[in-house]
Amino acid sequence: MAVYTDVSDEDLAAFVATYDIGAVLSCKGIAEGVENSNYLLHTQQGSFILTLYEKRVEEGDLPFFLGLMEHLARRGLTCPQPVLNRAGVALGRLAGRPAVIVTFLEGMSARKPDARQCAMVGEALGKLHLAGADFGMTRANSLSIAGWAPLFRSIEARADEILPGLAVAVAQELAQLDAHWPAGLPSGIIHADLFPDNVFFLSGELSGLIDFYFACTDAFAYDLAICLNAWCFEPDASFNITKGMALIKGYEQIRKLSDAEVEALPWLARGAALRFLLTRSVDWLNRSEGALVRPKDPLEYVKKLRFHQRADSARDYGLMR
Amino acid sequence: MAVYTDVSDEDLAAFVATYDIGAVLSCKGIAEGVENSNYLLHTQQGSFILTLYEKRVEEGDLPFFLGLMEHLARRGLTCPQPVLNRAGVALGRLAGRPAVIVTFLEGMSARKPDARQCAMVGEALGKLHLAGADFGMTRANSLSIAGWAPLFRSIEARADEILPGLAVAVAQELAQLDAHWPAGLPSGIIHADLFPDNVFFLSGELSGLIDFYFACTDAFAYDLAICLNAWCFEPDASFNITKGMALIKGYEQIRKLSDAEVEALPWLARGAALRFLLTRSVDWLNRSEGALVRPKDPLEYVKKLRFHQRADSARDYGLMR
Repeated sequence: MAVYTDVSDEDLAAFVATYDIGAVLSCKGIAEGVENSNYLLHTQQGSFILTLYEKRVEEGDLPFFLGLMEHLARRGLTCPQPVLNRAGVALGRLAGRPAVIVTFLEGMSARKPDARQCAMVGEALGKLHLAGADFGMTRANSLSIAGWAPLFRSIEARADEILPGLAVAVAQELAQLDAHWPAGLPSGIIHADLFPDNVFFLSGELSGLIDFYFACTDAFAYDLAICLNAWCFEPDASFNITKGMALIKGYEQIRKLSDAEVEALPWLARGAALRFLLTRSVDWLNRSEGALVRPKDPLEYVKKLRFHQRADSARDYGLMR
Repeated sequence: MAVYTDVSDEDLAAFVATYDIGAVLSCKGIAEGVENSNYLLHTQQGSFILTLYEKRVEEGDLPFFLGLMEHLARRGLTCPQPVLNRAGVALGRLAGRPAVIVTFLEGMSARKPDARQCAMVGEALGKLHLAGADFGMTRANSLSIAGWAPLFRSIEARADEILPGLAVAVAQELAQLDAHWPAGLPSGIIHADLFPDNVFFLSGELSGLIDFYFACTDAFAYDLAICLNAWCFEPDASFNITKGMALIKGYEQIRKLSDAEVEALPWLARGAALRFLLTRSVDWLNRSEGALVRPKDPLEYVKKLRFHQRADSARDYGLMR
């Protein structure tokens, strides 16, 4: 959860007045989005999300993220739409930070996703990959394999505070991944953070995807591997193969995996687990007293990584061929 | 800010289904209310606030708070209205906690209240005091003078961590207040926490009062003294007498202060400052790493208390007689 920046009522009114959405009725900081400050804004025209970008988001990346949301919506995906101000521009400034207003999506995240929801997420992920095909911009994935070693070095000395032996285990895993990381897989726009928090359901159907602030250009199957990590494990860190099967099947109803992607899946899943293990470890070790963000537990991904290290093939994730 | 309790989507849907407000569309934890978990709930019938009461609120007090909100609204005050479920009951249980759904009030808190807003708050406070007259329940103020000594004892040993010399200064102030605390003033229902966070404005008018969870039976003028503390100091802790004058004048347009109340005002203001100094000190010294609540600065009330200690009469607060 996160609300970092305090916005004065006068500044907010002046900012909203540059849009054609009526006057502000209310604005509540919401416990959503770890990277940015988010507010649920009611105006005379309805509900919106006001996002202030904090330092973890590169300002230079914002045109990519905002352009992508606009593009995906034009291609039929339900995701927040940046609202243009009267000058026709999506990106503004408020309280000294880059700021946007996007449309509000109704819906609820699934706290305990079931197999049917996993299938819907797989399908939505496939549609996202296809819809991104003709998006004109690219963005390198700074949190892919080339980024993991520097992340690890930044916490190596203290990693064992999280779990005795973690530094050695991560170093070994990095070496393994360096040797086996798949190259040349079908690539394009990926969400790269499609966790249950970022998917809304309404009346039993998937109603929208949010939080495109890790989106980038990378292997499609890596995005699927992130979803397997995020959606298909139980709270005790056991892998639920019924959910894995549903997620992969839902994905393949939209986009068939190639043989190379199928082959690569266990390595991609290991890499995805390591990526979240590393970023969570950094957040965990750098958590500050009084911070409004409760860091997520890195150990969850230690356990998931162990599962992937034992996986032999995509069959272990529920692929039926 | 506070969101303490995680509510599952299934539990929420089942809870909301006991009300006649349509199905849940979305539910966002909001950064509002220090004592409880609050969510902005959208249903098919509109916007509501869902409140889960955390341990700091006594469950036995809830009928008083909820009954008071209903009573005040019937008397024309704009405040959140508890929504009754199909069984005609306001108080339910969700995620193991007492929970209510109240109507959502549009409006924005003033970050930097001006004199005009102070006048409107004074008027609203006067109306609240009159509207509470025929409310049938009472609740002792556990945070009045009898409660301060135990609060102080709980932090006395560590008070100087906040400010060297604070323990001695508070002990002396407590002795002074014990000797001079006014008795027999006109009393009734008071809000007891009418800070700018708890007052909404819309289109330049006061649009509502929220957060009645400190409301109790006590001296009306003590409530006014709390407001003088909360609304009329500048960020540098200087007292803005124009705002004080506006607040008192707004109040007296509704309810005239008696001579005894006027006489007592400086002592009441000292007591009110000490009350917030003490509770903030407790929160400050007991803040925990990783907590989602950022404790408010007790030093703000050390400075305010010093102002009150130098005040001679109600004239120093802007009373014009």
